[in-house]
Amino acid sequence: MSRTNPSLEQLAIGVDIGGTGTKFGIVDRLGNLLYSSEMSTRKHNEVESFIADLHANLVPMIEQAGGIGRIKGIGLGAPNGNYYTGTVEYAPNLPWKGILPFSKMIEDTFKLPVVLTNDANAAALGEMMYGAAQGMNDFIMITLGTGVGSGIVANGKLIYGHDGFAGELGHTIIIPDGRMHEGTGKRGSLESYASATGVRLTALELLANSNTPSVLRNLPQDQIDSKVVYDAAIEGDELAKEIFEYTGKILGMALANFVMFSSPEAIILFGGLTKAGELILKPTREHMEANLIQVFQNKVKILVSHLKASDAAILGASALVWDLK
Amino acid sequence: MSRTNPSLEQLAIGVDIGGTGTKFGIVDRLGNLLYSSEMSTRKHNEVESFIADLHANLVPMIEQAGGIGRIKGIGLGAPNGNYYTGTVEYAPNLPWKGILPFSKMIEDTFKLPVVLTNDANAAALGEMMYGAAQGMNDFIMITLGTGVGSGIVANGKLIYGHDGFAGELGHTIIIPDGRMHEGTGKRGSLESYASATGVRLTALELLANSNTPSVLRNLPQDQIDSKVVYDAAIEGDELAKEIFEYTGKILGMALANFVMFSSPEAIILFGGLTKAGELILKPTREHMEANLIQVFQNKVKILVSHLKASDAAILGASALVWDLK
Repeated sequence: MSRTNPSLEQLAIGVDIGGTGTKFGIVDRLGNLLYSSEMSTRKHNEVESFIADLHANLVPMIEQAGGIGRIKGIGLGAPNGNYYTGTVEYAPNLPWKGILPFSKMIEDTFKLPVVLTNDANAAALGEMMYGAAQGMNDFIMITLGTGVGSGIVANGKLIYGHDGFAGELGHTIIIPDGRMHEGTGKRGSLESYASATGVRLTALELLANSNTPSVLRNLPQDQIDSKVVYDAAIEGDELAKEIFEYTGKILGMALANFVMFSSPEAIILFGGLTKAGELILKPTREHMEANLIQVFQNKVKILVSHLKASDAAILGASALVWDLK
Repeated sequence: MSRTNPSLEQLAIGVDIGGTGTKFGIVDRLGNLLYSSEMSTRKHNEVESFIADLHANLVPMIEQAGGIGRIKGIGLGAPNGNYYTGTVEYAPNLPWKGILPFSKMIEDTFKLPVVLTNDANAAALGEMMYGAAQGMNDFIMITLGTGVGSGIVANGKLIYGHDGFAGELGHTIIIPDGRMHEGTGKRGSLESYASATGVRLTALELLANSNTPSVLRNLPQDQIDSKVVYDAAIEGDELAKEIFEYTGKILGMALANFVMFSSPEAIILFGGLTKAGELILKPTREHMEANLIQVFQNKVKILVSHLKASDAAILGASALVWDLK
C-alpha cells in the first residue's frame, strides 16, 4: 500500500464512554491508535461539563494530529447508545439520566460529524476491522464485564434492529424463574450469571449452600468478587473452580441458543471474566456443544479478543466514522 | 407501473417441498400466482423419480405460461435446504436421506438457474415481498407446524449465517433439562413445546398430572392432537384452554429472547397452531412482554400471516429467483 502523503490521510476520533472513565484517541484507517488518553466520566454530574472536559482534552490532541481538517468525524461508543437516534437512553451505569441527545451535543461542541452506537457494538466493529473477527461476515461479540453486552454481525453488518436496540443478549432468559436481576427485575437472564456480578452471586450461593472447604470462606462477604474467586481457582480451590464451571455452563447454554439464531463463524469473548481463561472457557465450550443440534456442532469457534482492552473500544468507535457519508 | 408488453415479462417458478406434498407454481414479479398445482413427495422413494415427476408436472405449465424463455429461474424451499451449497442435508421429514445436491439435480433436469433455501426462509421472503412483512427490514418469521421453523430478516436481508444454517430457533433451549425432543435428543427446546407435536405432549402430560375434568379424557391417547385440543378449547374446555395457555407461555418466553437478539419490528407467525387464534396469541403476547426489558416493551407486533397457506411458500421460493444474477 503506498502512502505518498500521509499528512493528507484522514483520521477519526474514537471515544469509549464507560461508567467510570472515558477513553479517547485518534486513529488512522489502518487502525493505528496515534494518540490516546482518558478522563473521568463519573466525576461529571452534568453531561454538559463532561462534554466540555472531553473537548478541552481533545483540542490539543487534534492539533498534534495535524488540525481539525484531517479529522473525518467522531465515533462514540456508550452504554445504551442508539445508532439511529444518536441518543443515550436511560443508561443505568452513567451519571446522567433520561434520554440524552448525545450525538447532537458533541456535534455542536466539536463542529464535526458524529456517529454513536452502544459500547458492545463498537467493540464488535473494532474486532471486525482490526481484531479477531477480521474477514468474518458472521460473528457475535460478547462482553463479559460488570454486565454482559453484545454486538451481532450478520451478512457483514451490525444488527441494529428496527429501533437500534438489537443485541441485548445479556438480558435473554436462560434459566426461567432463575436468579433475580436487580437492574431489570427479570429472572434468569444471562447477565445475572455470566458477569462479574453474577460470579459474585454464584460464589455467595455456593458458599451458603455447600460445605466444600474453600479459602473464600476466610473472606468477609463484601470482599467476594470475581477477582478473588479467580485467584482462589488458579490456586486449585475446588469451590472456586466450581463457580467458574457453573458460570461456564450457563454461558455455554446461552451461546448455543445464539448460534442456532445466527450461525456465526465465531463468538468473540471480551472483558474481565475472560481473564479466567480455560477455567471458564472449557465448561463454556462443552455446554455450548452439548446444547447444539448436530448441524452446528464442532464448527463454531469461541475466541478471546486479543485487542488491548483499553484500545478495542476506541478503535471500534473510530471505525464507525469511515462509513459516514 | 406501465406494463406495455406483459408477454415479455419474466416469470419465476416457486416450489415448496414438504414431507407429504410438494406445491409449485409460476409467479410474476408482483407476486401473482399465475398457475399452481401440487403432487406427492412421500410416494417417491427415490429423489430421481421425484424430480422426474416434478419436471413432467411443470413442463405443460411452463408452456401455458409462454414457454421456458419467459422463466428466469426456479426457487426451491425445502426442509434443511442450504442456500449456500444448494444441498438438502439430513432432512428428517423427507423420504430421501443424506446430503442431496438438490439444486444441481433440478438445474440439470430443467436447464434453468436454481436457487434453494429452507422452507421457513422461503416463507419469510414470501412475507417480506408479498405478505405481512412488506416494507419491513427487520422481522422474524416463525412457522408453528409439526415442528417449529424460522426465518430471520435483519437489515433487509435473510440471515443465513456463515454456513447457511442460521435460523433454527425451534431448537433453542427454553426450559433447561425440559422435555426431550425425540428427533434431536436435546431437552427443553422450543419445538418440544410450541409445535403440533408439543401441544399433543402437553395435553398428555396435563391429562396425566391433573384431575381437571375434560372432554379430552373421553378420547384414546392416540387421538389426542392439536386439532382435538383446539376443538375442545373453543367449546370452553378448561383443560384444553390450559394447554394453549402453557404453549403460549413457552412461546412468549422464546419470542422475548428472539426480540432481545435482533429487535425485530414484528414477529410473523404462520402454520397450523396459529389457527387457535387468541387462545394461543394472548398468552404468547403476555409472556413475551413479561420477559422483555423495558426498552423493548410494547413495540414488537405479533402478526399472523395472512397469505394463503398453500401460496405463501411458493411465493417465497419464487421470490428467491429475482435476486439471481
